[in-house]
Amino acid sequence: MSENKIPYKIYLEESEMPKAWYNVRADMKNKPAPLLNPGTLKPMTAQELGAVFCDELVQQELDNDTPYIPIPQEILDFYKMYRPSPLVRAYCLEEKLQTPAKIYYKFEGNNTSGSHKLNSAIAQAYYAKNQGLKGVTTETGAGQWGTALSMACAYLGLDCKVYMVKCSYEQKPFRREVMRTYGASVTPSPSMTTEIGRKILEQHPGTTGSLGCAISEAVEAATSNPGYRYVLGSVLNQVLLHQSIIGLESKAAMDKYGVVPDIIIGCAGGGSNLGGLISPFMGQMLRGERNYRFIAVEPASCPSLTRGKFVYDFCDTGMVTPLAKMYTLGSNFIPSANHAGGLRYHGMSPVLSQLYHDGYLEATSVEQTSVFAAAEQFARVEGILPAPESSHAIKVAIDEALKCKETGEEKTILFGLTGTGYFDMYAYEKFNNGEMSDYIPSDEEIMAGLRQIPHFPGNEI
Amino acid sequence: MSENKIPYKIYLEESEMPKAWYNVRADMKNKPAPLLNPGTLKPMTAQELGAVFCDELVQQELDNDTPYIPIPQEILDFYKMYRPSPLVRAYCLEEKLQTPAKIYYKFEGNNTSGSHKLNSAIAQAYYAKNQGLKGVTTETGAGQWGTALSMACAYLGLDCKVYMVKCSYEQKPFRREVMRTYGASVTPSPSMTTEIGRKILEQHPGTTGSLGCAISEAVEAATSNPGYRYVLGSVLNQVLLHQSIIGLESKAAMDKYGVVPDIIIGCAGGGSNLGGLISPFMGQMLRGERNYRFIAVEPASCPSLTRGKFVYDFCDTGMVTPLAKMYTLGSNFIPSANHAGGLRYHGMSPVLSQLYHDGYLEATSVEQTSVFAAAEQFARVEGILPAPESSHAIKVAIDEALKCKETGEEKTILFGLTGTGYFDMYAYEKFNNGEMSDYIPSDEEIMAGLRQIPHFPGNEI
Repeated sequence: MSENKIPYKIYLEESEMPKAWYNVRADMKNKPAPLLNPGTLKPMTAQELGAVFCDELVQQELDNDTPYIPIPQEILDFYKMYRPSPLVRAYCLEEKLQTPAKIYYKFEGNNTSGSHKLNSAIAQAYYAKNQGLKGVTTETGAGQWGTALSMACAYLGLDCKVYMVKCSYEQKPFRREVMRTYGASVTPSPSMTTEIGRKILEQHPGTTGSLGCAISEAVEAATSNPGYRYVLGSVLNQVLLHQSIIGLESKAAMDKYGVVPDIIIGCAGGGSNLGGLISPFMGQMLRGERNYRFIAVEPASCPSLTRGKFVYDFCDTGMVTPLAKMYTLGSNFIPSANHAGGLRYHGMSPVLSQLYHDGYLEATSVEQTSVFAAAEQFARVEGILPAPESSHAIKVAIDEALKCKETGEEKTILFGLTGTGYFDMYAYEKFNNGEMSDYIPSDEEIMAGLRQIPHFPGNEI
Repeated sequence: MSENKIPYKIYLEESEMPKAWYNVRADMKNKPAPLLNPGTLKPMTAQELGAVFCDELVQQELDNDTPYIPIPQEILDFYKMYRPSPLVRAYCLEEKLQTPAKIYYKFEGNNTSGSHKLNSAIAQAYYAKNQGLKGVTTETGAGQWGTALSMACAYLGLDCKVYMVKCSYEQKPFRREVMRTYGASVTPSPSMTTEIGRKILEQHPGTTGSLGCAISEAVEAATSNPGYRYVLGSVLNQVLLHQSIIGLESKAAMDKYGVVPDIIIGCAGGGSNLGGLISPFMGQMLRGERNYRFIAVEPASCPSLTRGKFVYDFCDTGMVTPLAKMYTLGSNFIPSANHAGGLRYHGMSPVLSQLYHDGYLEATSVEQTSVFAAAEQFARVEGILPAPESSHAIKVAIDEALKCKETGEEKTILFGLTGTGYFDMYAYEKFNNGEMSDYIPSDEEIMAGLRQIPHFPGNEI
C-alpha cells in the first residue's frame, strides 16, 4: 500500500519549492471587479494607487492576466528561512475520530510571526525596499500581520510604523513587544501623531480605537511622509498572489505522494489564507481539469459570505479607502466580541467574493464555543495549539471527517492551519473556565450594517 | 563546492530518524556517582527509587553500561508528530556578522510546548502508562516542562497533576492555560492539597512558593496517591538519555552533508538540553575517535559549573530528595531575578558534572543584558524569537563566530536552540525599555549557599 509510505509530515526539498507565485485571476472567466475611486466611481488608475502602494505591488494588484509571477531571489532566500512549511498527515486525529477520512493540514505557524502573514509581509517589504523607500506603515488588530511585517522589515533594514488598535495595544502587550523586539515603532491608535487621529480623539476622547481608524492613520502616515508607502495584510489581490505559496507547496507535496484532496477547507476573514491555499487547486477547476469542494469557514458573529451582500463597499470603517466589490456586511458593521481577531472583518477578498458568487466556493459559518472545543480536541492529539482563526477550519474538517465515518467514505480532506494560539490564551482561559458564549447577529443588526453601504446606480443592496 | 548544497534547513527523512537513544554513560570511564539515600548515605536501590519513579525509568536511571536503548514504537510515533526538528544553517546570521564561521543550530521550539522538554516528557509518560499507572505528578517553574508533560499525558490519556510555583502561576497565566487546555490539573504551590504544602503555608502564610517546595508537593502527591509516580524534566540520567535524540538527529543531519562541528554550545540549567545535544559527539571523544570543543553556557546569576562545588547535595531546596553528586551552589541558593527561569537551578546533571570535572567540557557564564542583546540580534535576522534560556547559547555562538572573524578561521559552530520566547515577552519588554539589569552574586553570597551543602566524610566543600 502506497498509503503506508506517507510520512506524518511532508517537507519539500529546497529544490522543490515554488519559484513563482500563481495568480488565480488569470484563469477566472469573471475577473474580480476593479477598485473604484469613491469620488469619481471610476476604476483606480495605477497612478492613483501608486500614491499609496509601491509601484511593483500596484502592477501585481492590477494584473488579471499573468498566471505565474516569478518570486524574486531575495524573497526565495527569505522563504527558505522558515519555509517550506510542513504538510501534515493528521494520523493521530484520524485515529481519535475513528474516521476513514484521510486528513491533511498545511501548517503555517512555525515562524515567529506565528502565522501565514509573513508570506506576503516579506514580499511587500521587499518591493518597498527595492523602490528605494525608507519604510512602510500599516495597521494591526490581533497583531499577527504587524508582527510579520516587523520581522520582514527588520530583515531588510526597512523602517516599520505600526498603528495598533488601542485596545489590542493595551490587552496584548506581548504582541506589541514582539514587534518592538523586531525594531518596529508601535503606536496605539487613535494617536496624536496624525491629523485623523487627533480629530477622532477630539470627537471621542475615551475611544479604544478600531481597525478602521488604524487604517486611516496608517494611510495618512504613509502619504504624508516622503519615502513611505502603506501595506495591507489581507483582502487585496496582491496578498492572495503572495499567499499562493501555501497552495503551491501543498499541491507539490500532495502530488509527490499521489494524493488528491476531495475537500479543501480554510478559515476566511479577509481571505488571505483561504485564497492562497486554494489558488492552484481552484486554477485546475477553473480550467476544467478537475473538481474539488472548497469550503470557506467564517465566524457566525461576522458572516460576510453567508449573510453579506456582493456590492461595492469601503475597505475600512473610516471610509477613506477605494471601493472594492466584495461580499460585505457594511464597513461600519461592528462584530460582537469574537476572539478570532483575524476574522473580524466586514468584507472579503474580491477574488474570493467573485469565485463564491460564481459558485466555485462554498461558505459556512460556525460558532465560537464549538470552534474552541474543536481546537482543544485537535491540540490534545496533534500537539499543536491552534490559533482561534485556524480553529474555524479545524471545526469543519472534523465535521466532514465525522460525516465520512457515518457514510464509510474515504475522502481526503485538506485544511489550512494558519497559525498558533500562543497569544490567544486569554480566550482559551475563558473557554476552559466555561465563560465563553456565542453570538449570532440578528437580522436587524445585519441590516443596520448593510444600510451603511454606499448607494449609487448598480450598487443597490 | 559541496558547501553550496547545504540547505537552510536540514530535515531528516522519517526513515533516517534515530531508533534508539544513546546512553553516554556507557562510554564514560568515570561513571557519574550514584544517587545516595540521605538517611543511610548508601546508593539508592532500584526498589527505593521505584517508590517514586516508574520501574522502567529506574532501570534507565541506573544503567551505566548499555550504549543504545531502543525507543519504543509508540514513542517513535509520537516523535514523528513534531520531529525531526530542523538543523538550521544560520546563513543570515553569518552574513550579518560577516564571519567566515559556519553556524548551525538545532531548533527544538517547533512544538506547542515550545521547547525540547517534550522529548523526555513523552518517554516518561509512556513508561508510566505502560506500567498501568493512572497518572503522574510534577512541578514546574517557568512552565515549559509542565506544558510538555501535559501534552504527552493528553496524548496518552494519562492524568497529569502539575504543581506550579505560585508566583509563576499568577504571573504566567497563559502558560497555566496551555496546560489546562491539555487537560492537566494545575495547582499553585504551596497548596492545601498536601501535608508539606499545608505545613509551609502555616509557617509562611504569604509565601509565593519555590521550585523546591513544588517538588516536595509533587513527590508527596505521587507517593500518597496509589497509581501515581513522580516525573522530572532535567538533571536525571534518564532525562539526558531521552534528550540524546537532539544530538543523534543533529549528528545524522551533519553526517549527511559531510559537516563536522568544531565547537558545540548549549545553555545549561539542569543540563537536559546540553547533555542531549552533545551526547553522541561526546561519545566519539570519550572513545578517542575525534575531538570537539564543548561549551556549557550558564547565567552569571546562577553559575553552578563555574562557581559551584563538585559534591553531593540535595536536588531540591526542601531537602527531601536523594543526594546527587554534582556541581552545586547549595540547594538553598536563591538566584537573583533572572528571566531565564529554566536556568535558575542550583545544581547540574551528574553526567555533565562528571564530564566537566574530567575536563571534557568547558563552561562559561554570561550576563543577562548581553544575552537579550544577542537574542534580539538573532531574532532580527533568523526570524525566530528565542527563549531567554536558549539565548545564552546564541550569545556564546556569536562571540565564537566573531573570534573567527578576527582570526579568519572557518570554524563550524553548532549550538542548541532549545525553544521559543513567546511566554517571555515580559522580559523582552524590560529589555526593550532599557529596564533590565545584570546581577553577579558576590563571593559571600556564593559561600552562604555552599555552606548549606550536607557535610559528611568525603563531602567537604
